[in-house]
Amino acid sequence: MRPSLHGYCHGAELRVATIPLVHLSFHIDKVSGKARAGRLLTPHGEIETPVFMPVGTVASVKAVPQETLEELGARIILGNTYHLYLRPGVETVRKLGGLHRFMSWPRAILTDSGGFQVFSLNELRKVTEEGVTFRSHLDGSSHFFSPESAMAAQIGLGADIIMAFDECTEYPAERARVRESMELTARWAARSKKYFEEHKNEVPWSGNGHVGTDAFVRPAEQSSAASASNSPTLAAKSAARVGHPLSGDSVQSLFGIVQGGMDRELRKESAERTIEIGFPGYAIGGLSVGEPRELTREIVESTLEHLPADKPRYLMGVGTPEEIVEYASLGVDMMDCVLPTRAARHGLLFTSEGRVSIKQARYAQDENPLDPSCSCRVCARYSRAYLRHLYASNEVLAQVLNTIHNLSFYLDTMRRVRHAISLGEESRFLSAVWSRPKP
Amino acid sequence: MRPSLHGYCHGAELRVATIPLVHLSFHIDKVSGKARAGRLLTPHGEIETPVFMPVGTVASVKAVPQETLEELGARIILGNTYHLYLRPGVETVRKLGGLHRFMSWPRAILTDSGGFQVFSLNELRKVTEEGVTFRSHLDGSSHFFSPESAMAAQIGLGADIIMAFDECTEYPAERARVRESMELTARWAARSKKYFEEHKNEVPWSGNGHVGTDAFVRPAEQSSAASASNSPTLAAKSAARVGHPLSGDSVQSLFGIVQGGMDRELRKESAERTIEIGFPGYAIGGLSVGEPRELTREIVESTLEHLPADKPRYLMGVGTPEEIVEYASLGVDMMDCVLPTRAARHGLLFTSEGRVSIKQARYAQDENPLDPSCSCRVCARYSRAYLRHLYASNEVLAQVLNTIHNLSFYLDTMRRVRHAISLGEESRFLSAVWSRPKP
Repeated sequence: MRPSLHGYCHGAELRVATIPLVHLSFHIDKVSGKARAGRLLTPHGEIETPVFMPVGTVASVKAVPQETLEELGARIILGNTYHLYLRPGVETVRKLGGLHRFMSWPRAILTDSGGFQVFSLNELRKVTEEGVTFRSHLDGSSHFFSPESAMAAQIGLGADIIMAFDECTEYPAERARVRESMELTARWAARSKKYFEEHKNEVPWSGNGHVGTDAFVRPAEQSSAASASNSPTLAAKSAARVGHPLSGDSVQSLFGIVQGGMDRELRKESAERTIEIGFPGYAIGGLSVGEPRELTREIVESTLEHLPADKPRYLMGVGTPEEIVEYASLGVDMMDCVLPTRAARHGLLFTSEGRVSIKQARYAQDENPLDPSCSCRVCARYSRAYLRHLYASNEVLAQVLNTIHNLSFYLDTMRRVRHAISLGEESRFLSAVWSRPKP
Repeated sequence: MRPSLHGYCHGAELRVATIPLVHLSFHIDKVSGKARAGRLLTPHGEIETPVFMPVGTVASVKAVPQETLEELGARIILGNTYHLYLRPGVETVRKLGGLHRFMSWPRAILTDSGGFQVFSLNELRKVTEEGVTFRSHLDGSSHFFSPESAMAAQIGLGADIIMAFDECTEYPAERARVRESMELTARWAARSKKYFEEHKNEVPWSGNGHVGTDAFVRPAEQSSAASASNSPTLAAKSAARVGHPLSGDSVQSLFGIVQGGMDRELRKESAERTIEIGFPGYAIGGLSVGEPRELTREIVESTLEHLPADKPRYLMGVGTPEEIVEYASLGVDMMDCVLPTRAARHGLLFTSEGRVSIKQARYAQDENPLDPSCSCRVCARYSRAYLRHLYASNEVLAQVLNTIHNLSFYLDTMRRVRHAISLGEESRFLSAVWSRPKP
């Protein structure tokens, strides 16, 4: 019998204020140098950190079915609020039970605040104290994001972790401009938190039994989950029966974002002001905006010093395979980047032996697997010659297979990082990650 | 341990003329009315008939990984010689061990002769007794196909079943033109067979132990398969060990094609002349070229009367789900069509409840699965609302999921057809296939 996806109702009438609303929990299991190996428990499952989060901009990690993401071991993916707000629209996603159910992804999701896309995709944006007016890149229509509306959007989408609305400062910028921007972000952070605290019980899946792998519950179980929604105990039992602990974490968590451009003092001040507002996790934003990589590293390293050791630290929008290893070694717990998926669609593949531009004619008769050290389904089955042919022929399957491999490489790299940390191999951190068995 | 794809050598020095070269075998298990349920045994596995063959034009069924095709139960797919000849080129595929190994598809493959594409994609073609001069649709370069070169190309590609080079007569056409074209096809069929008989041992996998699921043989087994290539007995044992019977069918099979336009008398004459040349299977070509569907059916029905009952009958380039059921009921054993894959990419989906144009706004908040009676991975997991969103957002995943569903629907339909025949339900043939359990 095929499980029905959408068997029980949800909505305001089922929300129960008596269910304890607990933030996500973060446990550090091992510290090695500055690096930390830990576990982040969300309403949609546990995530081992440091973690790389594949980007699924409009509720799809481009070209990859959700079952393949599961097979690859992805425990959390990222959605872009800006894109989802424009299409299919927050109200549609909310009515359909939130992002998890909409895209049939039972594991964790993080949404950004929309701030970065508003700044990177809109040349005609207008920023005021109240918020940002911008035009849709799809049809030119005018829209407005404020800290409050960005929170409302992210609550409606229902990711496990959502982000404060921030201004991503352009690079380069004068110090006065960077300060002004950082202070605006701090004020917006306070407004974001206030709105979130007042509305966090409006998440589509809060307190209505929609947890964990519920998308795969059979109808009979769904009915009991629905009827159990007035009882935390019954709801917990129902959740346990479908293979996922409820663990009391039935609300979203809001992370703050540190800005401050390339100025170490302003970064320190931004960190302090954001921590003063108080969040269960902190992100470093406004990097990878065109500055030299050495500067990125310097700002990351100095900013991390000012973030609390017991909270997850999320470096937004990085990086190459080498960079995510390096940032993990500096103490970053979470990262995301479009690089593995976007590069894949352009034929740039990451392997244990370096980059492969699969479009090159030199691979036309290369019978070897793309990466002899990779165990992904692409490297197990297909040759470089075939992947080159698919790319040269503009076949859709090229995008599918290339993306699966690149994501596998990134996720596998982070598994090696976690293993190296757990072994306490800080001094040999990079080499432990990069030395691979010969084929 | 990851299986190595390309572990042993192949080529002229390993070809052994002493291996018996036996044609494919075809067994009819049940006849019900005019319909037949049977089994076609090829060098790359057994195929239950009637069978629908997904089209993999340039060595890829667009957007679907080979492992998913296996999961869907596809036992044979089709490749287009014209496209493969242009890209990646026959010599490249031949050097890489043939199409099966090139695309890592261990099951059966059929290639067309290139005739249909030359005619449908080339307005500047020039036909002579010798062959056809045409221009590449990719770069405008000039090429020439003759019966001999089309056979050489198909032998180099190494499909299990290959097709005689024919002229696909345009529609409408005068009777004199149809006769002239049919007679040219008959002369080309004789030349195709002559070349094939003289060169069939040049197939990349003939007599060198490359059979069945060899792509997944571990290196040690590959070595023994290679060393066994001088001994049919050892080769058979090696093949059996990797899960696939060698069964002596170590060469390709060449099918003849009946032409004759929409003229029943010329179709009869074409059938008789093709049968006189002698092939292990017969195709009906030159239909679905713009004529009314009723005329297609009439020509199919009358042509089938003139084809030998004990040989597989292949109707080229059809059809809709209703049509493939109807043609199977008339006694057709094999069919292929781009419709399920191409329609999927344009958002047209086939379901047990009729066609669904998933782009329509009416599905934007439809939480139901695409087809409640379908057990494919798409219907088991995703909602119509999500599929509609993917399509509206121009996401690559829309092409992937839509194609998987449509192929599942076609292959499932043919399973129902075979089941109905095996039950002897000729009188209730269509209703047996189309009546489905309610969700």
